[in-house]
Amino acid sequence: MTDNSDLYIPTFCDMLEAHERIRPYVHKTPVLTSSYLNSLIGAEIFFKCENFQKAGVFKARGASNAVFGLDEEKAKKGVATHSSGNHGLSLSYAAGRRGITATVVMPHTAPDAKKDAVRGYGGTIVECEPSTSSREAVFAEVVEKTGADFIHPYNDPRVVAGQGTCSREMLEQVDDLDAIIAPIGGGGMVSGTCLTLSNMAPNIKIYAAEPKNADDAYRSFKAGHIIADDAPQTVADGLKVPLKDLTWHFVSNYVEDILLATEEEIIDAMKLTWERMKIVMEPSSAVPLATMIKNKPVFAGKRVGVIITGGNVDLDKLPWNK
Amino acid sequence: MTDNSDLYIPTFCDMLEAHERIRPYVHKTPVLTSSYLNSLIGAEIFFKCENFQKAGVFKARGASNAVFGLDEEKAKKGVATHSSGNHGLSLSYAAGRRGITATVVMPHTAPDAKKDAVRGYGGTIVECEPSTSSREAVFAEVVEKTGADFIHPYNDPRVVAGQGTCSREMLEQVDDLDAIIAPIGGGGMVSGTCLTLSNMAPNIKIYAAEPKNADDAYRSFKAGHIIADDAPQTVADGLKVPLKDLTWHFVSNYVEDILLATEEEIIDAMKLTWERMKIVMEPSSAVPLATMIKNKPVFAGKRVGVIITGGNVDLDKLPWNK
Repeated sequence: MTDNSDLYIPTFCDMLEAHERIRPYVHKTPVLTSSYLNSLIGAEIFFKCENFQKAGVFKARGASNAVFGLDEEKAKKGVATHSSGNHGLSLSYAAGRRGITATVVMPHTAPDAKKDAVRGYGGTIVECEPSTSSREAVFAEVVEKTGADFIHPYNDPRVVAGQGTCSREMLEQVDDLDAIIAPIGGGGMVSGTCLTLSNMAPNIKIYAAEPKNADDAYRSFKAGHIIADDAPQTVADGLKVPLKDLTWHFVSNYVEDILLATEEEIIDAMKLTWERMKIVMEPSSAVPLATMIKNKPVFAGKRVGVIITGGNVDLDKLPWNK
Repeated sequence: MTDNSDLYIPTFCDMLEAHERIRPYVHKTPVLTSSYLNSLIGAEIFFKCENFQKAGVFKARGASNAVFGLDEEKAKKGVATHSSGNHGLSLSYAAGRRGITATVVMPHTAPDAKKDAVRGYGGTIVECEPSTSSREAVFAEVVEKTGADFIHPYNDPRVVAGQGTCSREMLEQVDDLDAIIAPIGGGGMVSGTCLTLSNMAPNIKIYAAEPKNADDAYRSFKAGHIIADDAPQTVADGLKVPLKDLTWHFVSNYVEDILLATEEEIIDAMKLTWERMKIVMEPSSAVPLATMIKNKPVFAGKRVGVIITGGNVDLDKLPWNK
């Protein structure tokens, strides 16, 4: 085990508590199957559809756990983050349900669609310049002024415990899984999956799927220490962020392997899923299937859970309509 | 009641028998909800997702009932149709499951995607010239030569009985519905819904939704007799066909009202559903929601079932990406 003496590692009990806490605010998402994709891979595949989750993404779980776990005093001061993507949406959603403020710091250059989405879920946007230094300065100012609780998108035990509720549901929904595969960026979902399965079903192998263009988790996994990429470019824009100490703990200890897919393979798998399963999912969610298509022997004859992480995609800019 | 002395009207018993017959070959599709769309309409809406059905469309139900209801002798000669759309796919699927031949007559000018889809489900294509006379001549020749059973896309009691299984499932899945709304083209799904509800839940009001650009069912309903359009143009390409005597029987006797939506309203409702519900559905399936958005008082405070009929759409030619 990695030495993490200064790090609070969420426990199985934290995940169970998270599940009771967030149940009124998140969906128990359905599991779908496709006989076509089963034949294609030569496996029995069970797709856990977190694209149908509140805010369109699994991150509503972790955000809800963090928001609803605050005591009254802290809650009054609100929550804050600097993720303009799915975590910003999810935090806005959860804070809105609790009736507290979520402040999302984002560059004034962010697309209007992203700003509208955060506002649509009730979040408050504070704009910064499009640089890391400005973002950090503005964010510090917000926290200083409001006393808001900073909720990191993934390097936070409350968030990881919340994400772990997804695979707990899956164990209720599907018997005898041999493996579960999820996309990996910062590692929040994969860590939550590790937390749950290492306690409830340690025989189930956990795979992570990553874009080749943003393969920092893969390289970290092979090297045995965190390697962060410098601004990777991939269509799977939810997966550009690096592992942090908390998620590295889970990934390094419990993941069986990390598999890679190219941009073209990701886009093909995404389109194939839309066509055959009739679901809208974002590019990040297609990475697991893309890696399964090129690693069929790994999954042959197995019962495999695939976590479709989210469905927030700009329908006016689909990656195959270039 | 309309006089239909020469017409076999499928009975409630035919629908029950259809359900037992097709159960191994079709999905019990899920019912999804969206709190956003509930707020938008001011109603509780339950979406029956036949876009997740085998072959991507509810028509797998009617086609399976027709195919699996044939005796051995007839089945050996196969089945045939001249629908190059969803019925052609569904018939190919059902025939493939039974291991018999489905011949689909279609113009050689049909898009490759449609031909590939029919072949993908195991159907045999016989090409004709792109004219009604050629299509009829070639089709007659196929039937003459093979003895194949002609299965009409909707004006066939076996097909209507099969489509009726969809609302039977819905009654098991959702309590206390006040209304059900489905798109109307030839009227197969609406007729099946009438067949089932008039027997099982006659208090549930049945609405049909139609594109304004192809409003022949609406005008027929108001006039009290079938009016067929001459080649209507609508993005909801599954809804261009006219009512026939069998479906007119059900529509004229059991439908509460037919509501209309413009092309723009249909496309907006389609995009809204993709964005908020994260499901891929074809334009025809968006017509009910489009009509509900413009007729909110009709549905206010009600529990409404909406049949999402299918999800077969060309992802390279989405109607909002023009």
